[in-house]
Parts: sequence; structure tokens; C-alpha cells
Amino acid sequence: MQKFPCLHRHTATRSITASKLTVELKTDDTAFKNQPKKEDLAFGQTISDHMLMVPWSVENQWGDPKIVPYEDLKISPAASCLHYGLQCFEGMKAYKALDDPNSLHLFRPHKNMERLTGSMERLSMPGADFDNGELVKLIEELVKVDQKWIPRGEGYSLYIRPTVIATHRFLGMAPPIDLLLFVITSPVGPYYKTGFKPIRLTCDTPFVRAWPGGTGNSKVGGNYGPTMKAQADAAARRYSQVLWLFGDKEVVTEVGAMNVFFLIQNKETNLPELITPPLTSGDILPGVTRDSIIALAETWDDLTVVEWAPTIHEIKEAAEEGRLLEAFGAGTAAVVTPIDCIEYKGQDINVPADGKLTQRIWDAVTGIQYGRREGPEGWCHKIQ
Amino acid sequence: MQKFPCLHRHTATRSITASKLTVELKTDDTAFKNQPKKEDLAFGQTISDHMLMVPWSVENQWGDPKIVPYEDLKISPAASCLHYGLQCFEGMKAYKALDDPNSLHLFRPHKNMERLTGSMERLSMPGADFDNGELVKLIEELVKVDQKWIPRGEGYSLYIRPTVIATHRFLGMAPPIDLLLFVITSPVGPYYKTGFKPIRLTCDTPFVRAWPGGTGNSKVGGNYGPTMKAQADAAARRYSQVLWLFGDKEVVTEVGAMNVFFLIQNKETNLPELITPPLTSGDILPGVTRDSIIALAETWDDLTVVEWAPTIHEIKEAAEEGRLLEAFGAGTAAVVTPIDCIEYKGQDINVPADGKLTQRIWDAVTGIQYGRREGPEGWCHKIQ
Repeated sequence: MQKFPCLHRHTATRSITASKLTVELKTDDTAFKNQPKKEDLAFGQTISDHMLMVPWSVENQWGDPKIVPYEDLKISPAASCLHYGLQCFEGMKAYKALDDPNSLHLFRPHKNMERLTGSMERLSMPGADFDNGELVKLIEELVKVDQKWIPRGEGYSLYIRPTVIATHRFLGMAPPIDLLLFVITSPVGPYYKTGFKPIRLTCDTPFVRAWPGGTGNSKVGGNYGPTMKAQADAAARRYSQVLWLFGDKEVVTEVGAMNVFFLIQNKETNLPELITPPLTSGDILPGVTRDSIIALAETWDDLTVVEWAPTIHEIKEAAEEGRLLEAFGAGTAAVVTPIDCIEYKGQDINVPADGKLTQRIWDAVTGIQYGRREGPEGWCHKIQ
Repeated sequence: MQKFPCLHRHTATRSITASKLTVELKTDDTAFKNQPKKEDLAFGQTISDHMLMVPWSVENQWGDPKIVPYEDLKISPAASCLHYGLQCFEGMKAYKALDDPNSLHLFRPHKNMERLTGSMERLSMPGADFDNGELVKLIEELVKVDQKWIPRGEGYSLYIRPTVIATHRFLGMAPPIDLLLFVITSPVGPYYKTGFKPIRLTCDTPFVRAWPGGTGNSKVGGNYGPTMKAQADAAARRYSQVLWLFGDKEVVTEVGAMNVFFLIQNKETNLPELITPPLTSGDILPGVTRDSIIALAETWDDLTVVEWAPTIHEIKEAAEEGRLLEAFGAGTAAVVTPIDCIEYKGQDINVPADGKLTQRIWDAVTGIQYGRREGPEGWCHKIQ
């Protein structure tokens, strides 16, 4: 191991302070050795060489950040992250410009930081008032350290996973007095290797993803594990994902772990409307891709964006009347995922999925992410 | 470290096999050193010297169990237990008979094993079909190894925390292919040092603990972290716990992290009924203490047990009419916790709490736990 101390005044810091970062690099003979060929990358299986760690404790508040070689964490078996779901995370990506491998950028990183601190607050984790910009700077440093892990080419990126866990060694139920914020990264390839592959959804599950007053609008661990059973049941019946309905009226909420959008021709005006459930119900994750699609589409003259949660019956009716024009999921991993079929009570609702709008959104969002297109101020966040 | 290999044939085992246990004891100079005076024990803060570990992997299924000195776990930062809430646990206790320190017993351990495997299944964790009796045998061995940690005396016990976490190093969403089952223990003192201390509850929270189709009937991590915010809000207003209501009708479900019971005089018959919400709604934890109270009270001639979920309005009406006789929470930590006040929309409903039934249940349950009373077959599980 080589050590490159950048700055380490050993004083307690209250907020996260990027200038106190120390970097310990992997030695040359082990670094960059485990990267598969870029054609073989599978989502979430390859972890890059380094990780960022920032501890929080009730005595010292946020400690000095450090980038160190990726290695196992030492966690007490009594740590409350392992018992009480005291864990939250983010998913974001770093991109390499296609025409300039030295040009690295993030996509709207401050949105992820806002959501992360919101998730921490939802879980009664202290320290959530840190300066978001400082954590973005640290993530930039981590991306630079491991930039060789980002393959060049359209669709390749470095998936970034900021995570906060409670390391407090206590079997009682209490807000934790020790936390660890860590960031790991994982190179990923194109979600669609040969053009869009529409997915088939089912609504037919006894499980409920989220509810008002729960945690569906935060990115916390407890939202995810319990969905795998519904997902496995769907897969066994050859559906790709669950379309989560909520309540007696069977309102549409999310698809799998993505936000959902429908392009529906308005019954009265005949004009196309891009519809997605609003965040007001408290059970919808405020997706960064969701927010970006809304913001982009609102600038387009040929459609209207409507934040509204249709019931599955309204979707079915629109399909039957030929007014359901497209449907897609939206999230960081795939950007957009077209939907071509929705099962409801054993019957398939077919979605035309000519995919024109889905493609247009894909082009717009990925264009900004790869630096081919100009986006709104701050969306393409250049790493200096 | 001394090593005491009991049996270790290094072949893959499908189920958990107690006979393959190996025990590695702490050396004498460090063992039993960190135990506070029994008067100073605080719940969940002191961890005993040893822990039990049983790994599961997709290749080898359940591996050989081992008891080793308590130490930090090495967990990959990409392990799905830290990201997706893939964690479940149990809470149970070992008791030392008051008249014979060599007589150790568990209370209905098979009930905990059933619930643990149910929680694993809810989270799509593989390996949940292991032989429950084998895990009970291993827990017995762990208790025997650390029996010096159990203080003598009424109300003292060894809290036992079986836990299953997904150690699968993968950022994607999938049922895990690596698990770790571990058991740690913690000596605990009497919950009530000087007689019952009734608690004050509030229903006034915007948060909802659980939902039908969610995980409220499993003991998974994601149920707990999100409740701390409601708990902190309640405490700030000098209420001890939240009484969780559900739905538009405001049905009573649980209190804090306990099941809830009400003793109410029936309007028509004038006879006392012990009322607790049924498990059918899918959002109530099937508590072992809850089940034991129901089973015991059903044998008593002077009251009737009714599994029914009253609304808060029905509780309020009963209180106003003088028919609400007692109320208490029930769980492993405190056995029973009397309730003397319930806030609903800013107004306190007072509960008489003469505590006669609460005391009777306490005497019956703890009598069996400490071996003073004969209980139903298998409830007092002697450790051989």
C-alpha cells in the first residue's frame, strides 16, 4: 500500500469536509486487475478498487473522509444496521465523454445528496445536515481515483453507490450514535445492447410495496428486500416486473424499483399527456430520472406533463379506447424501460409501445449524461 | 485462543446440523471480563463473550456451525444486507432457575425458530427449510458456553438475538446466494426494578408502522428503523410509545414494538373480555408472548379471550363508559407493560390500570420462564 496523505489535521469536524480527505491507493500490482472485459460487465457484480469512507459519531460528528482500497468492513454483530434496517443508499453514475476520455461528469449529483439526507432523516440518523457539496467533491475524487474502471463507449458508466449505515453497537431501539457513510463504485455496461427490450408487467401480487406514512418516498433498505418475493413470483409467470398498485381504487404507483410514466391521449382534448404519479402521496420515490424527464418534457410543445396517479382501471380503459400510446419505467440503471404489456387479474393489457416518446426521452437524457447535448444548468456536472 | 473441535467433517451439509458444531473458546484471561455489575445492566448494551455462526451458500447450503469468541464480522460493503434490508432476527431469552443456578431454560424456542424461517421466506432468503430443532440445540450450546453471563435473580436473563443477514456481494436486486446466520447474547436485568411502571401512549403520529401485504407480520429489519422517528416525536411530547392505528377506521394494531391487549367489559354481557388484534390482517407481529398470554388466559374461567381489532373510537367509548378495565403491551423484553393513558387527537384517554390482570399474567408467564410454575408441554425448555 502506498499512502498519500493529502491533509489530516486530527481535529473533530462537525460537517463533512472534503479538504480533510486522505487517499490511500492500492499498490500497482493489485490495482485494476479484476476488471472484466467491457462486453462481460453485468450490473452490480464488479466493484472498483477504491472506496470512500466518512464516519460519524456522537462525540466527533463527521470525521475525516478517506479513500482507501476496497475491502470488507468490520461491523459489530450487534450493529443496528444489521438488525433494524438503519441503512439508506443512493444510485448515481459517472460518465466519460465519448470524444474525450479525460472528461468525466456526474448527472445532477446534488439531487442524490438531497435524497440521501432525506432518507437519513426518515431513519432518525443524525448528521444529515452535512454540506451536500462537500460529499459531491469527495465522490468526484473517488471517481477520479478509479477512472480507469470506466469503460469508454456509449452506454458505459461507473455506477456509484453512496450508502449510510448505523454502526452503533446496541440491541435496543434508539437513534444511532455511530454511522458510517461509504461510497463504492461499479463499472456498468449498456442496459440495452441491441435496442430497447420492452418489459411485461403484472399487477397480480398480494404484496404492497409502500404506503403513505411508510418509507416509500425514501431510499431505505427496507423498501427493497420485501419486493423480491413479488418479483420472483412475477418472473415465474414470465412477467419481468411488478406494477405496484395501491389501495382499494388500485392506483398505479411504481414499477419494480422504477418510477412509471404513461403517454395517454386526453379523452376530451385528444392531446397527448405524459402522466406520472405525483410525490404528494408519500409512497413514490422521488427519482432523479423521473424529475429530469418531467423537466425536459415540460419544455416540449407537443405534449403536456400531468402529475397524476391513474388507477389501473383508467389505464385499461385508455388502452381499450386506443388512447394509451406508450408506457415506460424510469430510473438510474436503465434510464427508460418501455412497457408493452400489463397483466391485471389474469388478463393482459397491451401497450402499443411504438416507443417514439421513450426513444426521444432516452436521447435527451443520455445526450446530456454523455455530454453530447446541452442540458439545463448543473445537470451535466463536470468533474474538475 | 483454545480450540475444541467437537466434530468437523468438511463435507457440505444441506440443513443445519448441530452435531457438526465446533467450539473455539475465548482464552481465560479475556473471558468474562466485561460484565458490568448486575445492577448496572442496561438492555442491549453488554454482549457476551461468544457467538454462534452458521453460513449458507448456494454451493454448500448450510455450512458447519461454530461457536467463536465474539468479534466484528467482516462484511463486504456491497453485501445486500447493508443495502436492501435483507436481514431478519429474533428476540428470546435464557433463564436460570432461582433455586438452582445449573438449571437453564429457554421459553418456547421453537416458536421463535418458526417465526425466523417465516421472516427469511418473506425476504426471499434461501435455506429457510432448515431443521428448527438443530438451531435450538446450537443455541443451547451457546447459552451453556456463556452461562456465567446470566446473573442470578428474579428478572435477570440472557437475551438471545438470532439474526440472519444476506452477505451476498452484489448491488443488483436478487434473492441472495450467501447468508450468515449468527446468534449473539446479552445479559439483561429486570425491566421493572420497583414494580410496574405504566406507560403513556400517543396515537398522534403521521407515520404508519405496517400495512397488509407489507412485512408487519415478519421480524425484519425494515419494520424497526422507520419507527424511531415516531417514537422520538412521542418522547418529545412526554409519551413513552406510539399506539399504532391503521386505516380510515383507525383500528388499533400494536404499541411501539409490542403487541397490545385490552381488558374490556362487554357491553351486552357485562363480562370481561381480553382483546387483542388477530393475526389475519397481515400487519401484526405474531409475538410469542402474545401467543402465550392468549393460551394461558383461555384456560381461565373468569374471562374470555377475543382476537379482534377494536378501533380507537371503540376504546375511547369503552373508557368513557367505564368498561375499559386494563390495557398492556406484550413482548419478550418486558413480558407485559401496563398502559395508563392513550392520547388521541390531543386528548388523553385514561386507562384505570388497577393492573390486576396484568400482574396475574406477569406472574403466570414469568413463573413458567423461571421454572417456578408448571406450564404447558414444551414451554419451559430445559437446556440439557
